[in-house]
Amino acid sequence: MSKARLEAFSDGVFAIAITLLVLSLAEPARDTPDLGRTLRDQWPGYVAYAVSFLVIGIMWINHHALFLRMRATDRTIQFLNLLLLMAIAFLPYPTGIVGKALQEDHGLVAAAAMYSATTWFVAIMFSGIWFWAAYGRRLLVASFPDAEIGPSIRRFGIGTVVYLAILGIAFISPIACLIGHAVMAAYYILDQLTGPGETVEDAVAA
Amino acid sequence: MSKARLEAFSDGVFAIAITLLVLSLAEPARDTPDLGRTLRDQWPGYVAYAVSFLVIGIMWINHHALFLRMRATDRTIQFLNLLLLMAIAFLPYPTGIVGKALQEDHGLVAAAAMYSATTWFVAIMFSGIWFWAAYGRRLLVASFPDAEIGPSIRRFGIGTVVYLAILGIAFISPIACLIGHAVMAAYYILDQLTGPGETVEDAVAA
Amino acid sequence: MSKARLEAFSDGVFAIAITLLVLSLAEPARDTPDLGRTLRDQWPGYVAYAVSFLVIGIMWINHHALFLRMRATDRTIQFLNLLLLMAIAFLPYPTGIVGKALQEDHGLVAAAAMYSATTWFVAIMFSGIWFWAAYGRRLLVASFPDAEIGPSIRRFGIGTVVYLAILGIAFISPIACLIGHAVMAAYYILDQLTGPGETVEDAVAA
Amino acid sequence: MSKARLEAFSDGVFAIAITLLVLSLAEPARDTPDLGRTLRDQWPGYVAYAVSFLVIGIMWINHHALFLRMRATDRTIQFLNLLLLMAIAFLPYPTGIVGKALQEDHGLVAAAAMYSATTWFVAIMFSGIWFWAAYGRRLLVASFPDAEIGPSIRRFGIGTVVYLAILGIAFISPIACLIGHAVMAAYYILDQLTGPGETVEDAVAA
Repeated sequence: MSKARLEAFSDGVFAIAITLLVLSLAEPARDTPDLGRTLRDQWPGYVAYAVSFLVIGIMWINHHALFLRMRATDRTIQFLNLLLLMAIAFLPYPTGIVGKALQEDHGLVAAAAMYSATTWFVAIMFSGIWFWAAYGRRLLVASFPDAEIGPSIRRFGIGTVVYLAILGIAFISPIACLIGHAVMAAYYILDQLTGPGETVEDAVAA
Repeated sequence: MSKARLEAFSDGVFAIAITLLVLSLAEPARDTPDLGRTLRDQWPGYVAYAVSFLVIGIMWINHHALFLRMRATDRTIQFLNLLLLMAIAFLPYPTGIVGKALQEDHGLVAAAAMYSATTWFVAIMFSGIWFWAAYGRRLLVASFPDAEIGPSIRRFGIGTVVYLAILGIAFISPIACLIGHAVMAAYYILDQLTGPGETVEDAVAA
Repeated sequence: MSKARLEAFSDGVFAIAITLLVLSLAEPARDTPDLGRTLRDQWPGYVAYAVSFLVIGIMWINHHALFLRMRATDRTIQFLNLLLLMAIAFLPYPTGIVGKALQEDHGLVAAAAMYSATTWFVAIMFSGIWFWAAYGRRLLVASFPDAEIGPSIRRFGIGTVVYLAILGIAFISPIACLIGHAVMAAYYILDQLTGPGETVEDAVAA
Repeated sequence: MSKARLEAFSDGVFAIAITLLVLSLAEPARDTPDLGRTLRDQWPGYVAYAVSFLVIGIMWINHHALFLRMRATDRTIQFLNLLLLMAIAFLPYPTGIVGKALQEDHGLVAAAAMYSATTWFVAIMFSGIWFWAAYGRRLLVASFPDAEIGPSIRRFGIGTVVYLAILGIAFISPIACLIGHAVMAAYYILDQLTGPGETVEDAVAA
């Protein structure tokens, strides 16, 4: 029951944060001479919107898959989950900053770094939640196989390293960093769509 | 269970997007000399609000009817649904643009085209979700009649063509295009209110 | 099931609209010399926020009580409910207008009229939903007594007349109109708190 | 059933208010010369965001624990809960004010006082809800021990005094006041994480 309410609350925050992304798009000024052109020139804002939408969407699916494998939550999970949601709910802010920086071609390093730091924080929280739940089978459902615990913890750990690397790339090439975020989102989607049963969700469905 | 959570999440995004529409209305400036007149002159913004509210509301009812006919979801549905929600959550943005363009009588082609492109994308996603679920009865409930599969897929396909046509009209007469959106919303409402059992929802209720 | 989802969707819109009210408060400019005084001078905005919060909250309780007495919904209810939600979700806009008009002591007639027109529309929709559900016991639960149908329909009808009167008062004395809204909210709260079993909710609880 | 819907509605308001906090962060102006520095200089805004996120998150957990111990709600609870939510949904506003006042080092007393007054109001409502439910076991679940009623009411009462004291400190040292809020949040988290079974939630879980 408590777990169900935690998931419902988290789902709410995911749904609200993903829908608030649209507010990161600035409305054109009232006296815009060529509205069509202005709207077209804003394409980086739309790209940032779409990438962040997929990023939050995938995080939501991932969150779902994670909690499906837990038989209960405890206070540590509640606290880590609150920190995770804090970063998810923050994402619309750097999304707007990235969109505007791309459009003005100015301040991209700072924008990409802020965006990446947020996703890195999310990756750490996911890893922490899973480690706390899986280590010693503290909160795992009975059907989760022992042999999967180590690899799954490692996979989450690799995720935190990858996002740290993407954060580092922001200071060298912010464009490469942003492409990295799009690639990671695409990778998770493809993994979801084609994965041969190794993903968390598959194991749960099995 | 997974289907229930997907629907709950989608419901959340629909409810939030429909409620965020109000933020597309600009507040009058502080030093407005005649507030009554200013508020009256903003009538296109209210019309855009009302039409978009009905549009999203009908899409929500449609979404509901669609998922009632599926016995389960899979990852393709999850992904297509995420793209569908991406467009729904985007609608408050072009709604605000259309309201302002109507009010200033400036930039209407661009505004109407952006609005129509968004709804066209939504129509494509609805069609894609239904095709994926219905073709070969991949994810259909058992009670859905075989004879209805072909016609229902065709009906969704026609929807995508109609919205593409409305998008095209934006470049000829943006006003006609916007009236087209209002007519489509009214059509779906009337269809819902008077339809002789041919709509998706009827079949489910039966 | 369909009724449950309609209620859940409506609850979502109520919850979001009530929480968006806070966005109707303008943030003080960056260079405000005396922030304390500026925040104090904004008291009409806080009053508008609090009154609207109670208004939407009471509408939510009322909505709840209404649907508890229905055994099912149909398409007409779905459509009327969508129009009802359209007005509820609109309320943050006139709330902000009223708060600012009160603060600047300028444009109060227009602001109060817009606010009152919105609540009048809500009252009409409530009345329409109840009439459609109750007349001829179309959608009523079996436990609802026949003798209550006429009086309850009349009570909702009186509500629409009262809100129309409050709208009319806006053009004579906008302050009296706004006090009328506060009084109506207080009346419904007291009725909820002390009512001798005549309210909708009592009958359901009985 | 009515209690479940009240909790679902409250959860919605908590989830939306916590996610709207991000809108309290002002986006940098378009012509910012050094975006990285501007984003770094906004650190008080991020701190205010994080503290308020934890504050609302803890209030949500507390709300949850409270209602778990009630077997039903009545109209007084509904009304007090509405006032509680009114203050929760208001929090994004003073959060933004505090963040900006910290950043500009100007108006801190007013900002801290407004923030503290809001949390004090929340504490009073929590105390009132619990007193109404617990006094004379009016609405308590049967498993709640008699011996716990007095201490639990007193604990909530102490909470209101502490938040009043923090409000008073705002007028002497606003920084100390804000640290007080962070300490209170940390205290509740630690209490949640390490408490020896004396907290409300423990008793319920037992």
